[in-house]
Amino acid sequence: MGLPPKAPRDGLRVVALGGIGEIGRNMTVFEHQGRLLVVDCGVLFPEDQQPGVDLILPDFRYIEDRMDDVEAIVLTHGHEDHIGAVPFLLRLRPDIPVVGSKFTLALVAAKCREHRQRPNLVEVVEGQTTSHGPFECEYFAVNHSIPDAIAVAIRTAAGIVLHTGDIKLDQLPLDNRLTDLAGFSRLGDEGVDLFLVDSTNAEVPGFVTPEREIGGVLDTVIGKAANRVIVASFASHVHRIQQIVDVAERYNRRVAFVGRSMVRNMQIAQDLGYLNVPDGLEVDIDTAASLPDDRVVLVSTGSQGEPLSALSRMARGEHRQINIRADDLVVLASSLIPGNENSVFAVVNGLAKRGAKVVTQQNAKVHVSGHASAGELLYLYNAVRPTNAMPVHGEWRHLRANAALAEATGVPRERIVLAEDGVVVDMVDGLAEIVGRVPVGHVYVDGLSVGDVGESTLSDRLVLGEGGFISISVAVDAATGRAVSTPEVSGRGFSDDPDALDEAAQLVDKALNELAAEGVTETHRIAQGIRRVVGRWVAETYRRRPMIVPTVIPVS
Amino acid sequence: MGLPPKAPRDGLRVVALGGIGEIGRNMTVFEHQGRLLVVDCGVLFPEDQQPGVDLILPDFRYIEDRMDDVEAIVLTHGHEDHIGAVPFLLRLRPDIPVVGSKFTLALVAAKCREHRQRPNLVEVVEGQTTSHGPFECEYFAVNHSIPDAIAVAIRTAAGIVLHTGDIKLDQLPLDNRLTDLAGFSRLGDEGVDLFLVDSTNAEVPGFVTPEREIGGVLDTVIGKAANRVIVASFASHVHRIQQIVDVAERYNRRVAFVGRSMVRNMQIAQDLGYLNVPDGLEVDIDTAASLPDDRVVLVSTGSQGEPLSALSRMARGEHRQINIRADDLVVLASSLIPGNENSVFAVVNGLAKRGAKVVTQQNAKVHVSGHASAGELLYLYNAVRPTNAMPVHGEWRHLRANAALAEATGVPRERIVLAEDGVVVDMVDGLAEIVGRVPVGHVYVDGLSVGDVGESTLSDRLVLGEGGFISISVAVDAATGRAVSTPEVSGRGFSDDPDALDEAAQLVDKALNELAAEGVTETHRIAQGIRRVVGRWVAETYRRRPMIVPTVIPVS
Repeated sequence: MGLPPKAPRDGLRVVALGGIGEIGRNMTVFEHQGRLLVVDCGVLFPEDQQPGVDLILPDFRYIEDRMDDVEAIVLTHGHEDHIGAVPFLLRLRPDIPVVGSKFTLALVAAKCREHRQRPNLVEVVEGQTTSHGPFECEYFAVNHSIPDAIAVAIRTAAGIVLHTGDIKLDQLPLDNRLTDLAGFSRLGDEGVDLFLVDSTNAEVPGFVTPEREIGGVLDTVIGKAANRVIVASFASHVHRIQQIVDVAERYNRRVAFVGRSMVRNMQIAQDLGYLNVPDGLEVDIDTAASLPDDRVVLVSTGSQGEPLSALSRMARGEHRQINIRADDLVVLASSLIPGNENSVFAVVNGLAKRGAKVVTQQNAKVHVSGHASAGELLYLYNAVRPTNAMPVHGEWRHLRANAALAEATGVPRERIVLAEDGVVVDMVDGLAEIVGRVPVGHVYVDGLSVGDVGESTLSDRLVLGEGGFISISVAVDAATGRAVSTPEVSGRGFSDDPDALDEAAQLVDKALNELAAEGVTETHRIAQGIRRVVGRWVAETYRRRPMIVPTVIPVS
Repeated sequence: MGLPPKAPRDGLRVVALGGIGEIGRNMTVFEHQGRLLVVDCGVLFPEDQQPGVDLILPDFRYIEDRMDDVEAIVLTHGHEDHIGAVPFLLRLRPDIPVVGSKFTLALVAAKCREHRQRPNLVEVVEGQTTSHGPFECEYFAVNHSIPDAIAVAIRTAAGIVLHTGDIKLDQLPLDNRLTDLAGFSRLGDEGVDLFLVDSTNAEVPGFVTPEREIGGVLDTVIGKAANRVIVASFASHVHRIQQIVDVAERYNRRVAFVGRSMVRNMQIAQDLGYLNVPDGLEVDIDTAASLPDDRVVLVSTGSQGEPLSALSRMARGEHRQINIRADDLVVLASSLIPGNENSVFAVVNGLAKRGAKVVTQQNAKVHVSGHASAGELLYLYNAVRPTNAMPVHGEWRHLRANAALAEATGVPRERIVLAEDGVVVDMVDGLAEIVGRVPVGHVYVDGLSVGDVGESTLSDRLVLGEGGFISISVAVDAATGRAVSTPEVSGRGFSDDPDALDEAAQLVDKALNELAAEGVTETHRIAQGIRRVVGRWVAETYRRRPMIVPTVIPVS
């Protein structure tokens, strides 16, 4: 697939810079009449193959020379994989209007403050319509695992697009804010030309259990608890936390929020009226530690086994205030994100070893997903009846499953666009088609710097992480190539045995003498000779592949 | 907990060197009247925190000075986590009798051949009794996810011990070889003093579905397949493979085994009569590749996403003979071992992207566990009615769950021994108690070498894998400490930017001048100065933590 043609004059172009073919860093760029609209701008968290990386950003190259064409960024909700990269995009142009609902923008504002940015925020509510150049946006209430999520319909001269964002169809939501299926039906009557649909749970049959059923389960497990109770959950899952707070109150326990993001978000949620904590119920962690065990519920971060979180420190017995004792109850009211199993189970095992009872979604219904299962997606397709469907927010297995659902509801197979990041989709005369591909890569944030850690650095890290390195340093006479120092041979991450490299040092000595005898004086050739002899020796002796790092210093 | 007292004269001592507090490298040492009996000797596969390690062995230190006291090694079945470390133990004493059932010993023999060992094998069958010094062993049929598994009862003057090995209670096993619950009951009548019980699935409520039900599911999914079918499974799961072979025959498809261990084990299984492949049904992979797509089933390794496996190469489009096409069917008839999620999903996504339909245990009942669920464990406890129970084969969360089941059936809480690797349990006068702890650690195999890679090397690898390193090499005049070369500053795994370290090089220059001006000539002090200035610079500039590796070469 080559580079795309020029964007069609009266058509709509759609390019995802993240979030298709992967779960995370969602960002979709819509182009019409030379103007751009961005929906979501999130981060992706790194996997094993991306060691040392803090965050992965969408690749902005496609739009970085066209920042003045960007009319707005519309954010569907406040999760990191939808808003986390906003500050990095705003570095390219700080005054882009950032459009979203109240709670979403509150989280964006807090994030931007940490980056010392003051974004141009445009607050919207469901039912409202805003215009951004040639794009007219209409917002629909949807439910998800964070308050105030929206879907966005984008009207242009090229047709109507509906983007679900992250969505589920809880028919008994705690805040009574239903996903606006009626609005989607009305839009469907008008005619939706392109429907972008959350694929995360497309493989899961049936329907997501209502969030409110978690409340009953929490009531049972916390009600029976005789000692301290610790509940870990996501720091943005306000409705889950509300249910924990309600149960705590019912059993006459105080609540303490633990973990930086939990404390911050719950403050925001209370300030804006999304979380209701009765006066006097909340205490800080020091007060909580001083209360009788059966009078307190700690609400903590760390549900994914993050090693620095409060919960992980408790599991290792390293928490300053909280010392886990036999018959404490720990509830992980959270999903287990694939890839985090070892970390999470390490926490559960640490708690179990100390005698705590640990309740997880494996042994009780203490979590439900925020994403529509297959049954709900069928409702969406049948309400919207789109001309073209485009599964988004998913790995390939999810996209395929979502495509099968679209087809089952009557979207013709050739009108289902299976794209991935960078694939360019043009909609002209109501038909969406893949027309090319723009380069997109992984943009890594490591510490303070964005983009200087790339595939070559990561590949070195993988080699070093697997086998360490052996360094050989020697000073040579610049004129003759003869060694004027004893070669220093040392390894890191290679062996605990202090004599492991003795033989290699002798081989290096010998090789240096031979090279000098041959009259070799160029340092890179001497280094090459050292690398060859040490590399062969280590492969034969140890069958390992450390990095071999020769340094030859010419001295005159 | 301190070192244990001297082993009691007429008691029985039990020490697990692996397999309790973790899943893998199972090895339990029983001691009576100064003699030792070892049950199982397996390996553990490394996790993220053990980079570059191939295998983890039980720590033999506790017995390495007493190898002449070892009467025998009894192997309960042929999985790697029960037999994988046998060759390493035999290095300490090659003639130890290795006791096990026919299929188990066939796999041990094949493994030992790779290590150029000819072990002293003692074949037993269920119902048989063997004597090894003061230990009398009786063997019981049990079912598990490999043929010919046994439990072992150990009779000594100190009482009767029953060790389940890995066990489940399939009531309709494919080979009609039931777990000998009747035998366990008879032993229970006699009086079991200590019962060591598989904890792997103690957290899972209910009962494991019979293996034979997989056959019906495979029939449905493979029967409907129009193109090529690839089924991945464990290379030792003979009954699973038998069902795949049966379905293939039914639908007039040839079978090819793919992957070194699959080919080897299925040959052994056929030779010994555990697997029945009708004449002419099996073809090699080259023949399979030349057959029409709908006439072949490939039975492959790689169900855990191992990157070098045939299946992973197919998913990446890199397999020499097999090119995945739209509508190929791939079935992962296997569990998803925690920690392997990312690798397995990468394979599934690769296959889905190429258009294959992928069936896993997430969307069809194509796998059942080999370990008893809670319901089956209750049957075991009720049959055996032990005086003391000791959960084994599990992480802490599994041990706790198993202990709760023992207690529910009437084993008093104080008679349930929750130990972990290295904990010493003495049974005297029919009561088992923890009396101390012996040192056990992780023994790492990396390439050809055992044990030289330890915690210090692994910790260096973790640092290098996260942040790479910056090396600074400089030759100095041995007498004055003045640099006689330009310092070479270079990084690996640090940055893709070639100018990333320019500033650091200037700082090193400056620091060297200052140190020389202060009259510092000791190379380690100069190195320390360099490390300090570069470390501070990189933390402030990049907020990263690469390893800083200064080398100062004295030249006279």
